[in-house]
Amino acid sequence: MAPPKSHALQTNMDVDYVISYRFAKTDKSTAISQFEKLVEALSSVGLQTEVRNGDNHSVLLFVRVASDEHLFGEVYRSRVRDWIHGVRTAAPARETRQALEAEPLYEAERLRIIYQLITHPVSEGGAGITPKEGEWKNVESIFALHDHAYNKDWIKKWSSSWKLQTEDLDDIRNRLGEKVAYYFAFTQSYFQFLMFPAAFGAAAWLLLGSFSPIYGIFSAAWCTIFTEWWRQQEVDLGIRWGVRGVSKIETKRREFQHEKVVSDPVTGEQIHVFPATKRLQRQLLQVPFALGAVCMLGALIATCFSIEVFISEIYTGPLKSVLVFLPTVILTTVMPVLTSVLTNFATQLTKFENHETEGAYQTALTQKIFVMNFITSYLPIFLTAFVYVPFGKIIVPYLDVFGLTVKPFAQNEKQLKAPTPGNFSINPGRLQKQVFYFTVTAQLVNLGTELIVPILKRKGFSKYKEMQSERTAKGAGATSSPTADDPAEDAEFLQRVRQEAELDVYDVTADLREMVLQFGYLSLFSVVWPLTAVSFLCFDWLELRTDAIKICVEMQRPIPWRADTIGPWLDSLSFLTWLGTLTTSALVYMFSNDGLGPDGHPASIRGWALLLSILFAEHIFLVFRWAVRIAISKIDSPGLQKEKRERYLVRKRYFDESISQLERLPKMAEKGREITRESLEEDARQASLHGSTPEQRFWARQRGWRETAAVGRGFIEKAPLEVQGRRGSDASGNWGNETKKEL
Amino acid sequence: MAPPKSHALQTNMDVDYVISYRFAKTDKSTAISQFEKLVEALSSVGLQTEVRNGDNHSVLLFVRVASDEHLFGEVYRSRVRDWIHGVRTAAPARETRQALEAEPLYEAERLRIIYQLITHPVSEGGAGITPKEGEWKNVESIFALHDHAYNKDWIKKWSSSWKLQTEDLDDIRNRLGEKVAYYFAFTQSYFQFLMFPAAFGAAAWLLLGSFSPIYGIFSAAWCTIFTEWWRQQEVDLGIRWGVRGVSKIETKRREFQHEKVVSDPVTGEQIHVFPATKRLQRQLLQVPFALGAVCMLGALIATCFSIEVFISEIYTGPLKSVLVFLPTVILTTVMPVLTSVLTNFATQLTKFENHETEGAYQTALTQKIFVMNFITSYLPIFLTAFVYVPFGKIIVPYLDVFGLTVKPFAQNEKQLKAPTPGNFSINPGRLQKQVFYFTVTAQLVNLGTELIVPILKRKGFSKYKEMQSERTAKGAGATSSPTADDPAEDAEFLQRVRQEAELDVYDVTADLREMVLQFGYLSLFSVVWPLTAVSFLCFDWLELRTDAIKICVEMQRPIPWRADTIGPWLDSLSFLTWLGTLTTSALVYMFSNDGLGPDGHPASIRGWALLLSILFAEHIFLVFRWAVRIAISKIDSPGLQKEKRERYLVRKRYFDESISQLERLPKMAEKGREITRESLEEDARQASLHGSTPEQRFWARQRGWRETAAVGRGFIEKAPLEVQGRRGSDASGNWGNETKKEL
Repeated sequence: MAPPKSHALQTNMDVDYVISYRFAKTDKSTAISQFEKLVEALSSVGLQTEVRNGDNHSVLLFVRVASDEHLFGEVYRSRVRDWIHGVRTAAPARETRQALEAEPLYEAERLRIIYQLITHPVSEGGAGITPKEGEWKNVESIFALHDHAYNKDWIKKWSSSWKLQTEDLDDIRNRLGEKVAYYFAFTQSYFQFLMFPAAFGAAAWLLLGSFSPIYGIFSAAWCTIFTEWWRQQEVDLGIRWGVRGVSKIETKRREFQHEKVVSDPVTGEQIHVFPATKRLQRQLLQVPFALGAVCMLGALIATCFSIEVFISEIYTGPLKSVLVFLPTVILTTVMPVLTSVLTNFATQLTKFENHETEGAYQTALTQKIFVMNFITSYLPIFLTAFVYVPFGKIIVPYLDVFGLTVKPFAQNEKQLKAPTPGNFSINPGRLQKQVFYFTVTAQLVNLGTELIVPILKRKGFSKYKEMQSERTAKGAGATSSPTADDPAEDAEFLQRVRQEAELDVYDVTADLREMVLQFGYLSLFSVVWPLTAVSFLCFDWLELRTDAIKICVEMQRPIPWRADTIGPWLDSLSFLTWLGTLTTSALVYMFSNDGLGPDGHPASIRGWALLLSILFAEHIFLVFRWAVRIAISKIDSPGLQKEKRERYLVRKRYFDESISQLERLPKMAEKGREITRESLEEDARQASLHGSTPEQRFWARQRGWRETAAVGRGFIEKAPLEVQGRRGSDASGNWGNETKKEL
Repeated sequence: MAPPKSHALQTNMDVDYVISYRFAKTDKSTAISQFEKLVEALSSVGLQTEVRNGDNHSVLLFVRVASDEHLFGEVYRSRVRDWIHGVRTAAPARETRQALEAEPLYEAERLRIIYQLITHPVSEGGAGITPKEGEWKNVESIFALHDHAYNKDWIKKWSSSWKLQTEDLDDIRNRLGEKVAYYFAFTQSYFQFLMFPAAFGAAAWLLLGSFSPIYGIFSAAWCTIFTEWWRQQEVDLGIRWGVRGVSKIETKRREFQHEKVVSDPVTGEQIHVFPATKRLQRQLLQVPFALGAVCMLGALIATCFSIEVFISEIYTGPLKSVLVFLPTVILTTVMPVLTSVLTNFATQLTKFENHETEGAYQTALTQKIFVMNFITSYLPIFLTAFVYVPFGKIIVPYLDVFGLTVKPFAQNEKQLKAPTPGNFSINPGRLQKQVFYFTVTAQLVNLGTELIVPILKRKGFSKYKEMQSERTAKGAGATSSPTADDPAEDAEFLQRVRQEAELDVYDVTADLREMVLQFGYLSLFSVVWPLTAVSFLCFDWLELRTDAIKICVEMQRPIPWRADTIGPWLDSLSFLTWLGTLTTSALVYMFSNDGLGPDGHPASIRGWALLLSILFAEHIFLVFRWAVRIAISKIDSPGLQKEKRERYLVRKRYFDESISQLERLPKMAEKGREITRESLEEDARQASLHGSTPEQRFWARQRGWRETAAVGRGFIEKAPLEVQGRRGSDASGNWGNETKKEL
């Protein structure tokens, strides 16, 4: 047998999920009855349970599916739902075992189905457990256990390889679900695409310098191609992973408040309705919110910016070396507070908008967050590029509102020291320095905090919990350690589970946001410093690996949700690409002093020329994007091929069925029967019997195609033709029944 | 019995289709054998035939479905195909009669299915008759007979009603198919929407005058809302008529030339491939084509424009009153020739692009035609607005290239007569006059020719055919009239059919193009003359009625094709709306001389202000369009409701099925069995027998949810809580199997 330490990491004891039940803040009798209800609810949906003691006033409830039959039933149900929503092309086979053999269950699918079984409402066949909400507020978390053997291999493999293969992404999808896999796929694609601007940027930096129009065009084209390519790639991956269209399967938000219940006149289904107009009214609150956020964040950034410019470029008084850090101090203290207040406000606003589905809620929230992130990330550079540089000479001298440069010093030096619009000149290196800060320094800091902060947070939180329990324990007298009751055999395993229970929940959106914002620097400002892409290339190689480590070490195993897109972030990418053409063209024009252009000075920048560059660049971009979209849509990808193939098979089966049914129909009888006196008399009798209509008589003149052909031949032969003369004049060019009468 | 004349119009003799077989140019034996083949092919797919003599070397072959069973089989097959392609939500019932009772066949569907039965290739279950092509080049046309009773009612109803109801459109759809119905639905929607700009335009004309920014904003907003609304309405109508998604059912082009045949590795299907890169290369020829068309048409228009300006505004020589008509003469003679040459070239180019499907071919062709139409329709006004008005003062004096104003006259007056940039001034009314011409005069002329030209063409063509036959007859000697053989009873009916055989084929694209180009005048230039919409409102009321008359009287009954969109014209609408914001903002700025703005003179127009207006207007438009799109998508339309309902029903049925299957699974057994010494010994024996693994032992500690609940209760009670003290310290807070051992 393996040594206990490694054994604890090697087995998950067949546990599917662990439910952490915390009762520190509830009185015991309620806690006990709720716990009993919890166990019963889980049991009612076919889940087997085991309970163990947890850390600090919590118990750990281990859950697994009781029997294969139960699991298979759920899998079948989930697959039927997919089929109805068009995610699968073909209906799953009725015989579940057969279906599972044809298409084996992968780990993420299994975990997702079990998680849904635990959390779905009772009406939809689940146990209705909703962590931290309502009657289940004691259920602190529901999490699966890490597969340490796989995690170890994963990190080992990734840290030793330069490039990730599609198989690596498939692996992530199979283990952690499509949503996480989409993040890694996006980052990997982005990383690979980055090589082009990195190479071109390095060359441009050496040969062309900054603000090169050639680099600008290349950068805008690259952003467009990447965005459009990823749009297609999403579809392709969706097909590869069998999740195309899952974002259309709408999960209702539990928090959705309906205003009235309407019964559908046809289906009798009870529909919970919230008037769209009312929601629209509420959504209009976004406008003051956005304006407010812009003003508050903008004011903060502009203030710090002004202070910084003032102190570093005008101020010559005492403590300059210390005061230089004043804006940084203000930003790092006030900004997080302001951001968290605004984020909180955005969340409340989105909740107030009362979206019906989880998807709509997430999209609305993401959009608001993006606005805030946009301001905090890019506004400083915008201020430098489009306010400080062109108008700095005019504005900066007025920054000295308090007359700080003057007061404390000798009055007689006044005329010399105070800068006037005439003698102040802007610092031309500021823009490049700032871009360098955001694309290198800030990225480095970010990467560091991403790894360290969660560790500190976890340590602190666990300390807090310990203290809370200790305080409780002190009040209640001595107590035994929760681990005291552990059976020796499971002790190590339980210790590990208790640790995992304390970990943070992984939020893939935050990582995606980081990538999108990074893309923004590239599209908006890389023309200022063409080495931007080189820097990002290095960071992203690390980012992919540190994210893997983060998920494995610092986070609970993520619930394997499905996704078929990176969602609203794709729109953000499009927006940044579009805005990038505007900023790039403007920057290139404003700083094109190699030729005859202006040098960022207001005097030499011509309004019409600037606007014309922007207008021109934007329309070129729109046409180019349209062309790229069409070109990419024409490319046959393996995913699309797979889908076509599946559709063909379905189509073929149904056609074969329908055709076999058609074949049972009688073929057109060959009515070339012999014409005898009897049959003719019979026809005449039949006709008179039925009191025939003109229609019946019309269609009775020729019976069967042979008669029609014969009569037609008569017409044609009778017709006078130049070519052949009247060869067929004697043929029977008359009606079918006349022919018969002649017989 | 009714009098014969009206009787012939009242009955179609149950005829489904008439095939006109013309053999004037083939030798008789070939004609006869081909005719026999034709009749046999029709018979082989279950169609009954009757032949009658036609006019001038043609025979008329009447076709109807032989039996209901054959028709039902085809209907079922067609509906299954729809279902597979997602056009129908639910699969049609296997029992065809039942399915037809649930959802009766409408006339257009019946005719479409029979037409497809005649024309589809043999491999797809049709007779493979392809009019005018290959071996069927003698098959001149395949057409259904007009329903004269319905036509009469239709025209009567429409000419007496102000507004068309949705039911009227449903009626058209049931008779003439969705493609024609979409045209009428679009025109009717457009007509109804026109009331707003007509009312606002009239008010603006009275109160604000031309070039009003308020009218400009209204007009751009209206165009955007109408385009986006129609985009949604298309979907809605598609659902209402059960055709949503039919444009995705791709019909292969017969003319498609494959380069190689590839066998699909999975399905084994033979795929005919034409490399996409090669097609892309061929499509690039569009660029020189478009440039060529722009240059040729542009040169022609610019020349005529220059001549006109020159003669009417500079020239003072003899024959001025006659010479004024010179540009009109040039345009009306050269333009049609040039247009038809270019159209021909565009068709050849599109054929050369070798599209695989009919839809792709049509789209490619429509795009090319739109480019040409765009130039011929709008370039004259563009020249006036953006060349003549601002730069006229500079350019016009140089138009006198031949020195015509000077030479023939007294040399001494030279200095006085020749205009110089100084003394020439533009004609400010020219722009408005031109817009008036295009929006009133040209529309009137158009409406007239649309009714009269086909009549003349038909008369001429029938005369030509008569002459051709007469010539033939002269060469071959005397012949009897083709009507001589008609049975007296059918004579009138046959006469009518012969007339209908001579009629033109209705092309709905031409009518749609007319409407889209009209929309273009409104979006691009209506700010010049705000009464534009009033004029269009009147013309479109008439247009709807004359189109109805045209279809009923001057055209063969159209083959009832299906459609779920107006196709590429929708893109043209979007394009014109977008361009409209640019032209409107530019015109408003350039002619805003009520305030402090310029008056169309180059001196007072500032480049940056013009560009800023355009840039500003365009981005406001883009944001507005995005908002309108979102708002419209939120509106619940009856069509979308219907679709939701259908989907719900399908979903419910499958869920019920899957759930009934799940219910057969055994429910979680209640393992709260009595714990006895025997059962415990049995457990121990079982465990030792199986050589239990750690996992088995882990899950064996608690049996059934009741035990888990009991153990959990123990943990919770044992935990020290501030609130309650150690109330539960004596409870059995230990493992389940320990509990058992204690028994």
